[in-house]
Amino acid sequence: MEFHTTYSENNYTIYVNNGILKETLLKYTNQYEQVFYIIDSHVYDLHEKKFKDFNNVIKVPRGESFKTIENTMSVIDELLDQNVKRNDLMVVIGGGATGDGGAFVSSITLRGLDYIHVPTTLLAHDSAIGGKTAINRKQGKNLVGTFYRPNAVIYDLDFLETLPEEEVLSGFGEVIKHAMLDGQESIDALLEKTKNGVDIKNLNAFILNGIRTKMYYVSVDEKEDNLRKFLNLGHTLGHALEYAFKLKHGAAVVLGIIGALYISNKRYDDTFDIKSFINYVKHIGYDLSPLKNMNATEMIRYMSSDKKNMRKSYIGYVVLREFGQPELIEISTSDLETLLNELKAIV
Amino acid sequence: MEFHTTYSENNYTIYVNNGILKETLLKYTNQYEQVFYIIDSHVYDLHEKKFKDFNNVIKVPRGESFKTIENTMSVIDELLDQNVKRNDLMVVIGGGATGDGGAFVSSITLRGLDYIHVPTTLLAHDSAIGGKTAINRKQGKNLVGTFYRPNAVIYDLDFLETLPEEEVLSGFGEVIKHAMLDGQESIDALLEKTKNGVDIKNLNAFILNGIRTKMYYVSVDEKEDNLRKFLNLGHTLGHALEYAFKLKHGAAVVLGIIGALYISNKRYDDTFDIKSFINYVKHIGYDLSPLKNMNATEMIRYMSSDKKNMRKSYIGYVVLREFGQPELIEISTSDLETLLNELKAIV
Ligand SMILES: NC(=O)c1ccc[n+]([C@@H]2O[C@H](COP(=O)([O-])OP(=O)(O)OC[C@H]3O[C@@H](n4cnc5c(N)ncnc54)[C@H](O)[C@@H]3O)[C@@H](O)[C@H]2O)c1
Ligand SMILES: NC(=O)c1ccc[n+]([C@@H]2O[C@H](COP(=O)([O-])OP(=O)(O)OC[C@H]3O[C@@H](n4cnc5c(N)ncnc54)[C@H](O)[C@@H]3O)[C@@H](O)[C@H]2O)c1
Repeated sequence: MEFHTTYSENNYTIYVNNGILKETLLKYTNQYEQVFYIIDSHVYDLHEKKFKDFNNVIKVPRGESFKTIENTMSVIDELLDQNVKRNDLMVVIGGGATGDGGAFVSSITLRGLDYIHVPTTLLAHDSAIGGKTAINRKQGKNLVGTFYRPNAVIYDLDFLETLPEEEVLSGFGEVIKHAMLDGQESIDALLEKTKNGVDIKNLNAFILNGIRTKMYYVSVDEKEDNLRKFLNLGHTLGHALEYAFKLKHGAAVVLGIIGALYISNKRYDDTFDIKSFINYVKHIGYDLSPLKNMNATEMIRYMSSDKKNMRKSYIGYVVLREFGQPELIEISTSDLETLLNELKAIV
Repeated sequence: MEFHTTYSENNYTIYVNNGILKETLLKYTNQYEQVFYIIDSHVYDLHEKKFKDFNNVIKVPRGESFKTIENTMSVIDELLDQNVKRNDLMVVIGGGATGDGGAFVSSITLRGLDYIHVPTTLLAHDSAIGGKTAINRKQGKNLVGTFYRPNAVIYDLDFLETLPEEEVLSGFGEVIKHAMLDGQESIDALLEKTKNGVDIKNLNAFILNGIRTKMYYVSVDEKEDNLRKFLNLGHTLGHALEYAFKLKHGAAVVLGIIGALYISNKRYDDTFDIKSFINYVKHIGYDLSPLKNMNATEMIRYMSSDKKNMRKSYIGYVVLREFGQPELIEISTSDLETLLNELKAIV
């Protein structure tokens, strides 16, 4: 399957399928004098055979630990020491974190090198689309970065076979989100297909659908000035829980989605059957205890961008009028606190 | 005087005149909730009165010393600590170095903040146009950076009054370059006007012309894939001399231009009167001894991007068929070495 972006320039192709890495990559690497590979060290160990023809491999610290200025600058220094040129190609192989950091490196080395992203996690069906790059600072996640489009995304689903359960569930959180943003039919099909558990081999159609949904939002609003904000469904509370309870991103998003459904129900006459959604997510393996144990005031402090005027401020929150109909509302921190405390009681 | 860029989107205005800072800035700052000012500490001391109404001033190390990852990240941390938001404005005040570093900060903080550049040197008539941002690494200058357009450039020529002679001459190197790229008439007028020395007060027309010339090249080729390379007139040898002799950028460019004229003459039947150009630049205060004392082999090592195959390689060099007609040629390192040694003899 191939997707094509629809920007006015610098468009690229997203290839999704099993076993496509070698052949697809060659189409691109052939055009460059020099290619550098940035690979998550854990992914390298698990899939070494796939990489045996590569020259210029730079292994980077696994997952989130790569996303620091020190680690990304040290990759840049390695590239510069190896005499990287403006017309060389970078290939970034790993999950969302390696993608964020590797794309950041590509975007600022010699003012921007061509790069191809090869996502290796389920979550990366989300993170690889949309051109956001990022590293973390002590003040928070993803606070430094760029918008920078890859030259291609090659999503070889064979990589997913080695994903541990926990990472599958994390990625699946974004699959659920995308299905909810897509509409009733999508989410119904997804819940039906996974009612007895999430098997990565059954997900291809939903991954494709998720990519399609994400592509729609980032194509109409690349810089997140308006519609792209809808992709934050489940993320407002999700990020706060992720931070407070050190959760996997997608697992936190699932809890955040429960919050969004609850608030949506309060706004629009109980549209959603929350009880049965809660049962479903418990059944397929998510831990709901953080939602039960959260401190609402603390969560709101994390959510509030204006720490100085928190008491008086409003928080932007994505809710659903129905599946496929997201809306951005503003909730006062005091109303939100009440809602979160109600929610704790029903989980 | 106002210039308007002609990109397909994200266009901006370049305001050039004396005494325009306060009034012009207000038109923009009024539209933002929060404005942060990044100011060269030396410029701050010299022009403190101009800045007295500013909140949120971040003074940064003077000139080139700001352009490190450590210094730029520390500004970013200060912004994050002060709760900077994606819709805040940055105003960057200083010479080309402050501009390069401040624009880099603006381009990667929260994936890009709006920013206005307020250039304060003569050289910045060049560096403020074209959207290149940069910091240095131990491997060389400007190796890390982005392409990022400002929301406006406000060039208040009053700042130039405090520029020391040495900085005037440095900036003037780019003024000469722009006039030569523009054509015979421009360079004749410039040489005539400055034949008894460079007085910053007489330069306004030439500054405007330089901006116009630079704008032309960056508008037809923002990312330097082809025509923008012509702006490197004088820079190939110039950068090597700058590095080897620790020269001011524009002073090195002037020496580089002499080299370019010499090579042009060898290619195209002695078009240029090099002797009289050399006399002129000496007379207005440039030191030509680096050109006399350079080691040609060493210069070529600096110029060569492919250090491994230097002996066999070719170097891209901008020459002039006549004033206003730049061309990019490739010279073998051995031919270039001969030419540079000839040049040393005639300086
Ligand atoms: N740029 C965006 O638009 C965007 C969107 C969402 C999330 N993100 C970012 O993505 C990151 C989360 O994504 P992620 O979960 O893919 O991150 P990740 O890269 O940290 O991967 C998670 C873990 O899985 C391991 N792993 C990767 N591929 C594997 C494989 N094939 N088999 C076994 N193990 C494998 C990694 O080593 C890591 O330990 C976060 O940093 C988040 O900020 C970015
Ligand atoms: N981005 C681009 O396209 C581009 C193009 C050319 C040069 N550059 C960069 O520009 C820099 C050189 O420019 P520059 O010479 O303006 O650099 P600069 O910022 O280092 O300024 C030179 C010196 O003048 C001082 N100064 C600045 N304004 C002053 C004023 N009004 N009065 C007195 N002193 C003042 C500074 O403190 C500094 O010591 C280099 O870093 C170069 O890489 C960038």
